[in-house]
Amino acid sequence: MQRSKIKDIFAQGQAGRDVLVQGWVKTRRSSKSVTFIQITDGSTLQDLQIVVDEANPSHETAAGLTTGCSVSVEGVLVESPGQGQKYEVQAGSVTVIGGSDPETYPLQKKRHSPEFLREIAHLRPRTNTFGAMARVRNSVAYAIHTFFQERGFQFIQTPIITASDAEGAGSMFQVTTLDLNDVPKDGGEVKHEDDFFGKPAFLTVSGQLEAEIFAMALSDVYTFGPTFRAENSNTSRHLAEFWMVEPEVAFCELDGLTELAEDFLKHLTGHVLENCLEDMEFFNKWHDNSAIATLEGIANSNFERITYTEAVKLLQSSGEKFEYPVAWGTDLQSEHERYLTEKKIQKPVIVTDYPKGIKAFYMRLNDDGETVRAMDVLVPRIGELIGGSQREERRDALESRMTEAGISLDEYSWYLDLRRYGTVPHSGFGLGFERTVQFITGVSNIRDVIPFPRTPKSVEF
Amino acid sequence: MQRSKIKDIFAQGQAGRDVLVQGWVKTRRSSKSVTFIQITDGSTLQDLQIVVDEANPSHETAAGLTTGCSVSVEGVLVESPGQGQKYEVQAGSVTVIGGSDPETYPLQKKRHSPEFLREIAHLRPRTNTFGAMARVRNSVAYAIHTFFQERGFQFIQTPIITASDAEGAGSMFQVTTLDLNDVPKDGGEVKHEDDFFGKPAFLTVSGQLEAEIFAMALSDVYTFGPTFRAENSNTSRHLAEFWMVEPEVAFCELDGLTELAEDFLKHLTGHVLENCLEDMEFFNKWHDNSAIATLEGIANSNFERITYTEAVKLLQSSGEKFEYPVAWGTDLQSEHERYLTEKKIQKPVIVTDYPKGIKAFYMRLNDDGETVRAMDVLVPRIGELIGGSQREERRDALESRMTEAGISLDEYSWYLDLRRYGTVPHSGFGLGFERTVQFITGVSNIRDVIPFPRTPKSVEF
Repeated sequence: MQRSKIKDIFAQGQAGRDVLVQGWVKTRRSSKSVTFIQITDGSTLQDLQIVVDEANPSHETAAGLTTGCSVSVEGVLVESPGQGQKYEVQAGSVTVIGGSDPETYPLQKKRHSPEFLREIAHLRPRTNTFGAMARVRNSVAYAIHTFFQERGFQFIQTPIITASDAEGAGSMFQVTTLDLNDVPKDGGEVKHEDDFFGKPAFLTVSGQLEAEIFAMALSDVYTFGPTFRAENSNTSRHLAEFWMVEPEVAFCELDGLTELAEDFLKHLTGHVLENCLEDMEFFNKWHDNSAIATLEGIANSNFERITYTEAVKLLQSSGEKFEYPVAWGTDLQSEHERYLTEKKIQKPVIVTDYPKGIKAFYMRLNDDGETVRAMDVLVPRIGELIGGSQREERRDALESRMTEAGISLDEYSWYLDLRRYGTVPHSGFGLGFERTVQFITGVSNIRDVIPFPRTPKSVEF
Repeated sequence: MQRSKIKDIFAQGQAGRDVLVQGWVKTRRSSKSVTFIQITDGSTLQDLQIVVDEANPSHETAAGLTTGCSVSVEGVLVESPGQGQKYEVQAGSVTVIGGSDPETYPLQKKRHSPEFLREIAHLRPRTNTFGAMARVRNSVAYAIHTFFQERGFQFIQTPIITASDAEGAGSMFQVTTLDLNDVPKDGGEVKHEDDFFGKPAFLTVSGQLEAEIFAMALSDVYTFGPTFRAENSNTSRHLAEFWMVEPEVAFCELDGLTELAEDFLKHLTGHVLENCLEDMEFFNKWHDNSAIATLEGIANSNFERITYTEAVKLLQSSGEKFEYPVAWGTDLQSEHERYLTEKKIQKPVIVTDYPKGIKAFYMRLNDDGETVRAMDVLVPRIGELIGGSQREERRDALESRMTEAGISLDEYSWYLDLRRYGTVPHSGFGLGFERTVQFITGVSNIRDVIPFPRTPKSVEF
């Protein structure tokens, strides 16, 4: 018989048919006359109940099962008289595939702390929280692809190893094949020509500049891959390795970009509500009781647009006591962003036209000479979820900004070539995948939304 | 007016309607009375012809356009009286957005060598070959996701930075934040505790072991992300950085895995034929005139299954002169693989049950004690395209293999835990994304199927 996944069994129903189910034991309780086993196969949050009567030749086997055992069950799907499930399986045979010693198995029926579960990250996908997390991550990741594919964007894989460090978005990891015990030197300096790439190489902090190359040929592209920050930040919001989505759109100015960002977030949240409602109800119940309402808020509200200058005025006239002072020319802090989106405007807010001094060199300068066509999308609980801009497509203006920023025009001549040959207005943004999953699930620590978090002093599994 | 993409214009047709088209000039030819401009926007291989009559106020502008200029054109879509296209645009207005100096623009109408185009990898997406390549890559990548999503697999992002080096699949890149000019040492040894992760860290060669963790909870998972090899191989088939797909399936033995691999390749090739036929016809015409026939061969043939032992017999009795001798116990070389799939069997071949000495420690040992449940899928022109195995799920057998291979049981205790708690038969394979794109397009050098190739001494852009 063909194996059925538990998700499909519940979806298809049809009491009376024979089924073969394979999975892992969540719990088992036995009385003299009957044993109930809850099994999961990871296809859905919902366990499937297996009923093994005393008369069943497998009853002794079933009565000995413990949490974590793997089993194969053949039986008949029947309507469940019990509460909490519509169907259950009246077992014909129960076969143990792999045992699980209850004396040593670290996952018990009780709730475990997130810190403990991080130490056994190879077993935590078996818990309800991390199973649900994996399914929501998968759903968001696939929604990212379907959104862009339906709009004719091409998925580009930009390089992970790079010699560029232009964005200066923080410290970078170096990639090398040199023997650290015996680094070859020439006149006291590292002989980079002996290294694999013949020059210093790093892990990318962003695929944007390379994505721009492809937008200048294919019009609409996006990247979706890992990026890195070698920052010594031990916070609940930072990872040294995380995935990022970066669309880049030719013939698109800032207004078009804000529309794309709004449509994108609505697509992601709508997709999760439609495809992972059961998992979201779990997060809503156990992790953040505003999780579903927040998603519905994204899906149903029109995002507000204000300029940075307006935002500063709103903050200054708010009467709120902020930890960090608000002044035109300084960056907005998380507390400011959250005040705007949660309290003042009470929906997602897109803030545009930031002072050039606090934004990257490639953002398009406004006619005022002071602000740039940047945008940040602020959402409740998180603050900035998306950051982007219209790019500076005028070569002379870009060269001025690069010179100001101390970036070598020679080294980035390829980037300037995009403005030399058939330049067009273009725009793009970046969205951190893990921070988005954190936002969607309401889980408080970013280490608990990624399979194997990489943080300072932590690179296990 | 809303911009229309050229692909949509050709797909929707409807002569007589107004359109706004934005893109880059491929070619322009003018006579006294009329100028024809071919423009592309990357949405399709096909250029759109713009017709600008002498009477048009934009005619002088149009007549001055050169290759690479970006333009915005408003006009009326009409049926084309000329050959080679069904529709063209009778221009109302032509606006130049960005110029392109014909004296310095490196891309001219003539055909450029692949070597030259690699040097200007920031401009080569504008050529027909690399535009088509980007669209085929996108199509294959999306087909990878749709295949697994439709089957209920969960997409998992396994870590890029890892402390594991178990697979031993070649040299690894080290990842560090130590200053190479001044590596901190303690008693002559590198002080790894000063490094970002507090111990040596590397770029992953495979996400398999981590994917197994998730298969033991979610049943069916896949990874799709970058992997790395620090091998000093300057060949047309090797990259230091490439993307890999790795499904891992619980409750699945080798036969199920070969079926999955066959279905997968048929889905990928079928998807490309359906969605990128125009681009494939281009590759078929200019790069490999067997490209489309090869894809159709995959889609329409039933893959043959033979054991390694049978393969060795076929090779030994072939009468062929091979560069490398064939003997039971040594690995098959590309020439052997190609003989089997191209000449002897003349369709894709899945070779199973290789000698344990030439395969990884985690492959399941057969009862003969000599061979393992490995499989390689061989296809014409490339040889091995997929490699996989049923995994050793028996803890004692796995520990023996690890001890033989000199792998620390302590360091991989988490991997052994998967066999300690609820172990199940499971199987998985790996498919190199770039090698697949190379196979599909027939392009001879792997450096020309990836946006920015990373190879020894080469890390540009």
